[in-house]
Formats: sequence, C-alpha cells, structure tokens
Amino acid sequence: MVNPLLAPELRELLAEKNYRAICDFCQSLHPAQVAEFLSALTPREIWEILSQLAPSQRGEIFSHLDQQVQRNMIETLGREITGKLLSEMPPDDRVDLMKKLPKKKREAIIPAMAQAEREDLRRLIAYPEGTAGAIMTSEYAILQPELTVEEALAKLRREAPDKETIYYSYVVDQNQRLVGFVSLKDLILAPPRSRIRDIRHEDVIFARTTDDQEEAARTIQKFDLLAIPVVDESHRLVGIITHDDAMDVIQQEQQEDVEKLMAISGSHEVGAYMRLSTWDHFKSRIPWILGLAILGFVSGYIVQSYESILIQVAILASFMPMLADTGGNAGSQSATLVIRALALKEISTRDALRILVKEFKVALLMAIVLALVAYLRVLLFIGHSSTAGTIPPLKVALAVAVALAIQVISSTLIGAFLPLIASSFRLDPAVVASPMLTTVVDISGLFIFFSIAKLILGI
Amino acid sequence: MVNPLLAPELRELLAEKNYRAICDFCQSLHPAQVAEFLSALTPREIWEILSQLAPSQRGEIFSHLDQQVQRNMIETLGREITGKLLSEMPPDDRVDLMKKLPKKKREAIIPAMAQAEREDLRRLIAYPEGTAGAIMTSEYAILQPELTVEEALAKLRREAPDKETIYYSYVVDQNQRLVGFVSLKDLILAPPRSRIRDIRHEDVIFARTTDDQEEAARTIQKFDLLAIPVVDESHRLVGIITHDDAMDVIQQEQQEDVEKLMAISGSHEVGAYMRLSTWDHFKSRIPWILGLAILGFVSGYIVQSYESILIQVAILASFMPMLADTGGNAGSQSATLVIRALALKEISTRDALRILVKEFKVALLMAIVLALVAYLRVLLFIGHSSTAGTIPPLKVALAVAVALAIQVISSTLIGAFLPLIASSFRLDPAVVASPMLTTVVDISGLFIFFSIAKLILGI
Repeated sequence: MVNPLLAPELRELLAEKNYRAICDFCQSLHPAQVAEFLSALTPREIWEILSQLAPSQRGEIFSHLDQQVQRNMIETLGREITGKLLSEMPPDDRVDLMKKLPKKKREAIIPAMAQAEREDLRRLIAYPEGTAGAIMTSEYAILQPELTVEEALAKLRREAPDKETIYYSYVVDQNQRLVGFVSLKDLILAPPRSRIRDIRHEDVIFARTTDDQEEAARTIQKFDLLAIPVVDESHRLVGIITHDDAMDVIQQEQQEDVEKLMAISGSHEVGAYMRLSTWDHFKSRIPWILGLAILGFVSGYIVQSYESILIQVAILASFMPMLADTGGNAGSQSATLVIRALALKEISTRDALRILVKEFKVALLMAIVLALVAYLRVLLFIGHSSTAGTIPPLKVALAVAVALAIQVISSTLIGAFLPLIASSFRLDPAVVASPMLTTVVDISGLFIFFSIAKLILGI
Repeated sequence: MVNPLLAPELRELLAEKNYRAICDFCQSLHPAQVAEFLSALTPREIWEILSQLAPSQRGEIFSHLDQQVQRNMIETLGREITGKLLSEMPPDDRVDLMKKLPKKKREAIIPAMAQAEREDLRRLIAYPEGTAGAIMTSEYAILQPELTVEEALAKLRREAPDKETIYYSYVVDQNQRLVGFVSLKDLILAPPRSRIRDIRHEDVIFARTTDDQEEAARTIQKFDLLAIPVVDESHRLVGIITHDDAMDVIQQEQQEDVEKLMAISGSHEVGAYMRLSTWDHFKSRIPWILGLAILGFVSGYIVQSYESILIQVAILASFMPMLADTGGNAGSQSATLVIRALALKEISTRDALRILVKEFKVALLMAIVLALVAYLRVLLFIGHSSTAGTIPPLKVALAVAVALAIQVISSTLIGAFLPLIASSFRLDPAVVASPMLTTVVDISGLFIFFSIAKLILGI
C-alpha cells in the first residue's frame, strides 16, 4: 500500500513549488501514512509541506509524526510556528507531547498558542499521569436534550471537523452534567422530528477523571465502545477517551508488565529500541541487573555456610543449577497466572486462600513427576562421580528428589503469594515477579537443598 | 454502574412471568452487562429470558456470555434452540464458538441453523486459525459507486440492524472487488445528490484473508481505524475486522508472548484461571518445567566435570547461583527488547549486525560495573571462608569478576541472537526466550566460570 520511495519525489515537488500536487498527495492518504513519508524530510521541509494544508489536517499529520521528529521540529521552527502546530493538534496528543518537553521549553511555547487551546492544555495537563483524565481529549460532541434529531444532525455536521468523533454524542444538562448518549446510528435511524431527550440512552457507561487509565481502557474493550465519556466529581462531562487511545493504553500497560517481568526499569515509548542510545539502554537495564546480582550474594552466603557438606559430597553442587532453575520456572508460572488473573479482575486478594490451595494441588502433581525423574536421573548420573564411593548413591538420589519436590511446591506457592501480597498493599503485582522471584526462590531453594541433604545424608 | 444483586430479582420477574419488565431491563443496558447478569442463572432461565427479545439483541447478548455458559446452554437446550441462537450471533463470534466445540457436536448443530448462516459459517470456518480470514465478520455494509449519498443513507438505514458497523461502508464494483470506502461522517457531510463514486476514498487500507491476524490488528491500531476490510486473492471484499476484535487479538497475542516467556505452554482463553481444573493447569505447565529440568542436568554435567576444582576451592560454588542468575537476567532483558522490536516491525533480521553491536556496547558497560562490584564483594566475602587460606583471595576475586563480565556479555548477546535466529527461520521469536534462555546461559555461564577459574587460579 505504501511506497517507501516517495521522499525524493516529495523533495522534487517541493523544489518545483508544486504545492497543488503535494496537497493532493497528502489528501489521498491517511494522515499516519503521510506522517511516515514526511519523517524522511528535514523539519523545514516538513513545515513547508504542512503549511500548505488545512489546519485540522495539518494537526492530524503532525500528531502522527514520531515524537523525535516532533521534537526536532519544535527545536528548529521557532515559537510562532510551534505554537500554531500545537494549537492544531488533537488535545490529547498535544498534552502527551507537552508533558514530554522540558519545562522551560513548554513554558516558552504556551504563550504562542491560541487562547482556547492554551486554556484547554492547562486544564488537561493538570490530571496526574496514569489517570483517565490524563489521556482524555476535550474534542467531543455534546447535544442538548431539547434538540430535535434534525437539529442535532445539523449541529454535528457543523462541528464535525473539530471533533475527535461524531459517532458518539453525549447529552448534557444545563450544568454540563452527563445525562445520556446517542450514537450517530441512533440519529440517522430516528425520526427527524423526535427529541434527543426521547432517544438518548440514559444508562451511560462512563469513567471518572481519577480512574486508572487502564481501567477506563478495559471498560472500552469490555463493552466494544468507540469512546467512553469522562466525568468529574460533580458528574460533569469533561472529556472522552477514544477506542484507539484505549488500545494504545492496554498495549503500553501490558508492555510495562512484560518489562517488569524481564527486569527492565523505567517507562519509555513503545518502538524506540533503535533510537535509544547505548547509554539510555544501559541506564534502564543496569539497576535491576546490579540489584539482583547483589541480592544474589545472599545465596552465596548460604552455599558458603554449607561448605563443609560440599567438600564431603561435591556431587551435590552439580544439582544446584537445576534445582534453582526449576524453582524459578515454577514460581514464574504461578506468578504470571496470578498477576494476569488479578489484572483482569478475575480474582482478588480475598480469593488468596482458594488460589493457594489450587496452586498447591498443581505444584504437588508437578513435584511428584519431577521427583521421580530426578531420582532415576541421579542414580544414573552419580555412577560417574569421583565421590560416588563415600556416600550411598540411593541416599543422594533421595535427597535430590525430595529437595526438588519441596523446592517446586514452595516456589509455586511463593510465586502465587508475592503478587497477592503486593496487590493487597496496592502495589503493582508485576513488580515482584520474575527476576526478583527467581532470586528469592534461589535463596529458599539452596536452603531447602542443603537442609534436606544434611538430614538424609546424615552429615 | 452495575448492580450485582440483580440475579434474584430477575428470577422473581421470571417467576411472575413479567416479560415486559425483563425486556425493559435488557434494553436499558449494554448487551455485555445483560450477559453478566444472566451468567448467574441456569441455561433454561437464560433461554426463557432471551426468547422474549428481538433476534439481533438476543444474538448480541448470547455472544457476550462467557464461553463456558454458552457451552452449557448448547449442552442443555437441544438442537433447535441452539441452531437458532447460533444463527443470530455475529458471524465472527459464531465461528469462534463453533471452532471450540467438539467436531461431533458441531456437525449436529449445523443442520439446525438457518440456510444463509450455515453457508456463512462454512465459508468463514475454512480460514486457518491465526489469519485475518479467521477473525473477520461477514456483516459489513457495502455501497455501489453509482448510488447517490441520499440513496446510500437510505440503504444503510434499512440494513443497520444486520451490520456490525455502519460507520464504515465499503464501495465495491460489479465483481465485488474493493474500490473504495466512505465513512458515515463523509455521507452526512456530503451533498445528498452527490455520487458515492465521487466522494469515496480510493486509497483504502486493507488486509488479505491470508495475512496474520496480528498484522491486520496492528494496521487497525496504527491508523486508528474502526474497521479494516479483508479481501481475497482476487481483491474481492469478503469480510471486515472491527476495532474491538483487533484489540482482543493484540491483547491475546501479547498474553501468549508473556506465557511463552514464563514457560506456560498451550493456548487458552484469557481470564480462565479459576475455571481451569488443577489437572488442566498441570498439563499446561508440566511440559516446560520437566523439559527444562532435564536440560538442567546438562549444567550438572559441567559442574561434575570440574568437581576436582570445586573440592580444592569450595568457595567457588557459592558464586554459581549469582553468576547464573545475572546471566539469565541480562539475557532476558536483551531477548525481551529484541522480541518486541521484531514484533513491532521496528527491526528485522537484516539489522542483526547493528543489533548485536548495540547489545555488545550495552553489555560491555554493564559488565564493567558488575565486575567492579563483584571484585570488591568477593574480597570482603572470602575472608570468612574456611578455604580462604589455600588460594590467594585476590585471584579468586579476579576470577569471579572476569567470569561475571564475560557471562553478562555472552548472555546479552545470546539473548539478542536467539530471537533473531528463530525469526529468520520464521519461528515465533518469543519461544526461545526466558526459560529456555535461562537454561542455555546457565550452561554457558558455568563453562565460562570454571574455565576462567582454572586459568586464573592455575589449578
């Protein structure tokens, strides 16, 4: 669909000042596609093209540009043009971009923006990051209950260019309180003379400005909505969140969970792997790696304190990695499942006991299988060991099997328990998952292993 | 918004046969909300309520019921009612449900369905799982190029109840080939007498039936679309995928990636933690756990082959867990980032060299920090060891630091490399990630550790 070789052609059209052809090109494509082509040009060239277009189209294309390109343009193009571009952006994208600019830069640009957009920005930017208020847009269509369907359609026709969507309109009373909603489908199916009051849906699904952004996004997903209205504490309509932003939020939240699972810290844009510098990558990765490595020295202490056993039965050391990994894997599995079930509100911390019982049963089955396999494997294995003579192989096999079984059960339960604990303290359950969990079950596993070995081998 | 205590009230209304109140209740709420309430009732009660509603509403509510409830109803209610319910479902949900029924059951129901729906089902069910064809719906609105805007609106009004969306209509020629698209917004803004031919957008963003479902969903996301048309190999329009299904696909794909990262096999519905039996949980978790445990015995062999070193310098064993974990964490980080960048098409296998160079640089920085910390830590640590006397502590510290540095660099590169390899063989990169990777870098890490120790300590 998209021809990636168009940048030179665009440059040629620019050199010829063939603005007509450029406008036609921009209008025939989706703003996101146009933005993709423009990304290959310099900030000045991009502006030369954008300046030829209608304001709303310009705003759409600009807001689809990569944030790095947007920032380059802001750096290069001066206050006036920047203020104009920002005024024309969809309000939610504008807030998003402004939040990422340095405070000084932001305050330099704001006075260059149009009055209405300036106030809108000040209002939207005040909502804390991560709330529904912070991702909503203020370009929604409202209708008064006393309008007729005919009048409503005429109003929507007039306002269409300035609204994020006209497929959903919200009905508000004189105090801007949300009292209903009608879809464009309702409007074109209703008799032209009927009143909005009579055709509106009264039971509107809404979000509050203070709601978590993910919760609002999940509501959109659950009810297959195109948008959800956002109300303030007095039930006044103050914004809407559209389905495309909801999709981005859900993706971003899931991505952040994966990164937490994989020991990568900080929040950053999706799709920035190549653009981030080596130094930025280093900064987001080293904290966990270093922190966990230091925590890993604790397992070192445990091994060290059982050094006398290791010197007598060196073969035990060879089962340490397998024991640790298996515990880590079992713990990660149960943690992942519990974290997801918590995120989807399928379970809550009140179900803790039921969950732990279930996990115990699953872990018990896994422990039996693993212990049997380990027992047989060790018997075969130990024959070649140089220390084989000093300790009866059957006893070593028994020790490894019992330790592995207890390790799998305890790791599974720890994996299920930590997210529940985190959740009951209103922390994000994902943060206690994989890497931290691995280190915790390593420590508990080594302790279990050496205690069992000591007991069974009688050292 | 939702009152969870309504099930008893619904039962009361049923007992009184107050169908009027029941219908009003169902109409005032979103089908997904109604479905939630109904879930608390028995299959027969649910059917008693649904039978009072209009077919399209009944289909919507039924398709929002939990799949377990749907299956219970299919089991309980007999062929005729089941055929009726399935005929009334949205086509994409119907295919989805049918695919999950046992083949015998499915073939018993199909003859009870209405003719048109039966053919539609046969057509849709033929597309392979995971393709755009398999998730599209056939209830889309089409317009002919020669229609006027007025005629088009009249057509959409008539067809609205049977279409998934009327906000996007697709323009097709006599051979059903896709030649354009118009939104309802375009239609209500255009002069009533103008022709569809003249107002349609010609450059339609589309998917092919054979495209990967995730790719189609990502296109919807990228261009903020409400729906994407799906064409066959002759560019004939055969279905559409709507934004809500795209959102579900993206979530499901990400979830599957997380599960692969966390060593959980098989694909299952989202949100089924509590419903799955202990045995089902066991079956989906044991393969990875057992397979990796067996693979873990390989690291045992390595440790065993260096047993003589361990007996001489038992303190070395205490650094094994930290070394293995740090390698696993570093490898998981780079694998996660590369897998995501591949999934988002930000990078491709052709960038392999650039990626490896970048990862090498990041790893080098991390290695320097970790080696320094480890060196200092070992010096402090080793003072308390019983074997401290026999080997100079400085040498042990050096060996641990060097081994850790090499382990971090090699694990990071392995973590980046495995997904690229998998991707170049057209395998899902996520499958080679975390648990498998941990085991691989454990093995390489132990080998590095003992080789370096042998070299530096001169044993």
